[in-house]
Order: sequence, then C-alpha cells, then structure tokens
Amino acid sequence: MARSIGRICKGFQRLGLLSKQTQLIPFTRVPVGTVRTIVTLPSFLFPQPRDFSLPNPSWGSEMTRMYEHYESQCEMETEGGQKGPWRRLPSYNRLLKYATVFPSGGVYLSKMIQSKARLFTRNIRNPGAAFEYVLFVNKEEQKCVCILQAGHLLEGPPGHVHGGAIATMIDTVTGTHATFLSGPVMTANLNINYRRPIPLGSTVLLESCLEKKEGRKTFITCRVTSTDGSKLHTETSALFLSITASHLLGG
Amino acid sequence: MARSIGRICKGFQRLGLLSKQTQLIPFTRVPVGTVRTIVTLPSFLFPQPRDFSLPNPSWGSEMTRMYEHYESQCEMETEGGQKGPWRRLPSYNRLLKYATVFPSGGVYLSKMIQSKARLFTRNIRNPGAAFEYVLFVNKEEQKCVCILQAGHLLEGPPGHVHGGAIATMIDTVTGTHATFLSGPVMTANLNINYRRPIPLGSTVLLESCLEKKEGRKTFITCRVTSTDGSKLHTETSALFLSITASHLLGG
Repeated sequence: MARSIGRICKGFQRLGLLSKQTQLIPFTRVPVGTVRTIVTLPSFLFPQPRDFSLPNPSWGSEMTRMYEHYESQCEMETEGGQKGPWRRLPSYNRLLKYATVFPSGGVYLSKMIQSKARLFTRNIRNPGAAFEYVLFVNKEEQKCVCILQAGHLLEGPPGHVHGGAIATMIDTVTGTHATFLSGPVMTANLNINYRRPIPLGSTVLLESCLEKKEGRKTFITCRVTSTDGSKLHTETSALFLSITASHLLGG
Repeated sequence: MARSIGRICKGFQRLGLLSKQTQLIPFTRVPVGTVRTIVTLPSFLFPQPRDFSLPNPSWGSEMTRMYEHYESQCEMETEGGQKGPWRRLPSYNRLLKYATVFPSGGVYLSKMIQSKARLFTRNIRNPGAAFEYVLFVNKEEQKCVCILQAGHLLEGPPGHVHGGAIATMIDTVTGTHATFLSGPVMTANLNINYRRPIPLGSTVLLESCLEKKEGRKTFITCRVTSTDGSKLHTETSALFLSITASHLLGG
C-alpha cells in the first residue's frame, strides 16, 4: 500500500503538481457514513533525485582535486559565509520530469518514451563509465567551468574520446551557461575546432565565457584544456537563441 | 578448459595476432620427453561480433522502410547481382579491439580502460534505447547516408534530442564518409547550424556529401532532414585531416 501510494505520488511529482513538502491526503470513492482515512505521507516516500554532480568513488585524484578547488571558492548560504563567487550547479538525469504529449515535427511523442527519457549526458548510471562532470558558474565574471572525467564508454578513435562526446559536453556547458545568462535557450550554432585528442580516462577543464548578447542571441566561447591549462584540446564559438515554451512545444 | 582457451584466444584476437580463420596451437612449458598436446580450436570459440547496423525489433516502421529502400539498391556480390551503387557499412561497438598502452596527453591509458572501452554511439546494448542507425555509402556519387532512429536516452530539451547527440551522429557519419574517401582521418572542425529540434523517437536522415579534397584536408557537408526531406533539422560543414597511426599514438 505504502509502495503503491509512493508510486502515485511520484506520478504527481512528475506532473509537477506536488512539491516535496506537500502532505498528500489521498481518497477514493468513500461510501456515505464511513470514516475517511487520512494518510500523511512521510518524507521517505519522496526520495531526493540523485545529484550526479557530487563526488563518487569513480572520481580520480585530478577530478577530485579540481572539484575541491572550485568547491572551496563557492558562495555559502549561511550567515557570514561568503567564501567566493562560484556556485556549483546540481545535475539530474532529466531536465524536466514530465513533458506534455504534443505533436512536434509531425511526430507524436508517446507517454512511454517520455517516462523512460533520460538526459543524454546522464543516461548511464554506472559511475565513471561515461560522463563524470560538474559545473560551476561565476556570476561576477559571467563565466562557467566544467570539470570532466571521460569514461571508457565515450570512445571514438582508439583510446581517445569521441568527437561527438566532446561536442556533447561543449553543448551542455555552453547551453547551461547561456541559460544561466539569458533564460531558456536553444542551440543555434556550434563551431568546434578540434586541436588535440583527449585520451580516455583523463580529466579536462571546459571554460565557457560570454562573448556578447544581442537581442535574442547569446554568443558564448568555450575552450577545452588540460586541467593545468597547458594543453588546448578544442576551441568553440556557440550561438544560442532565447525561446519561450511555445517554441519548443510547437517544434 | 575450452572456455579458458577461448578467453586466451579472444585476448590474442584483440591483439590482432589472430584472424578468425587461424587455428591456434597452444603450448606452455613442456618437460623434455613428454608429448605436446595439440588442440585445434573449433570456429564457435570465435563468435562474430554483433553488427549493430542490422534491423532489430526496436526499429519502427519508418526506420525499417528507409533501411529496405537503401538495402534494395545495394550492390550484390553474387554473380550478376549488381543491383545498385549503395553499400551498407557494418557497425560494431569498438573501432579497434585493442590499442597499445601509450602515454598520450600526459595521461597513461590503463589496460583496464582499454578492455572496457566501447564506441560512444554503440555503448548501450538495449535495442532502441539510444542510437539506432545504419550507414550506406555510394562510391559513384561520393555520398554517404545514415538512417537514425533517436531513442529515449538521447534527451536534451524535454521531449527532444540533445544537440550533442545530433553532433555525435554528424561527426560519426561525416567521419566515416571522410575515412571512406581519404583513409584514416581525425575531425578538425565541425560547424553545425541547428535549424529545427528533433523529437525523441523520430527517424531522420543524415546525408553527407564530399565538398572538396585539398592535400591532407577533406571537406564534407552534412544535412539532417526528415526522411521525406521536407524538414531541415541541421546543416553542417566539416573538415577532416588525414592522419597516420603515429599521429594518434603520439597524442
């Protein structure tokens, strides 16, 4: 019973109708004259989604060192705790828990596909196997950095990271940065110059900077380098267009 | 015993020392005067790797229809069987079964990573969940097409394919095409214009054309459209540089 209520609640949570703090009072058809049972659901029925940006045992020493470097410069929300201008962004395996069924591009998106959908960069749960990454943003400098540890499932050229996997992280970091700066956006252009391949298993740094904003357009540049900055792997210029929900729903 | 020999043989196969047809005659330290056992291994110990480009039950009607359209125009190797100029390219989950341990970019690639490494576009075995695709090349027209069915694990914007997943397929198709035209290459530039998002679950067509070749450079263009060509999703220009093994091994 508790489990089935939990499932129902999860369904509502996906629909965005319940916050974590909501106390659900479920009821069904109740015969007149009977007492309605009121159930207040405990918090363990609403588990926190996993935040993939937090350290896990698969992280190597370089990934951990870089994480601690930026984490130690993060602003603190406690009194008098202003430590620095950076802020870590949490990361889940869906951007949205539920999307309305709509016709888009002539194709109807089925409920089944929606319920199973997962964010491309977080679709493998095995820690360390694919993308291990964490993003930090800096409001003052309008910058965003990402520490990436590239797992063994990202192979392209033998022993090296696939160009598409690098493009995926660049799109993720610049897109997140553009959203942070301009609200909801869609990628309009990615122009990526690949300078040096990235060995599988290595940790690299992605640095995203605002170039300019013009109306609906946000221009971002992004460099992928070794963590000490001595080796340049890729250079990118990216363009994002601000959108409203109707842009997406209308395909 | 047969299983352990099989494992050893697989190891040798990974090292590229044995072809499938090779009959292995294993031996260890044999005391002088004893008879050496000679084992000829049967073919079932060398299973064919899975060709991911062949139809499977997850393929929708549009994916299947497009596959049959190009498959029916493929050249045939039987006598008098010349049906058309297209050729289907098989697809496995590693480009190379084994890569030599080497220092690259300052990072040593461990044997463990190598043995577990999988091609980024084929790293999920669950049919239909991620990239379902098949490539056909046309020698006469120097073209390459790819039919892609985008699974639920490729999500970016809610209900739509991640820009990085699209970039990944563009890199894969143009890179394969460039390799077909010019031998081993590395991606030097991808310039992708995103025109219209791709709904999750839909089937699209990637068409790759040779623009020009200049020395080590191969210039390719690629369009991603709906299967009837009426909707343009992305337009890309790509540049590839011819490489030798030493380019890759040297980082």
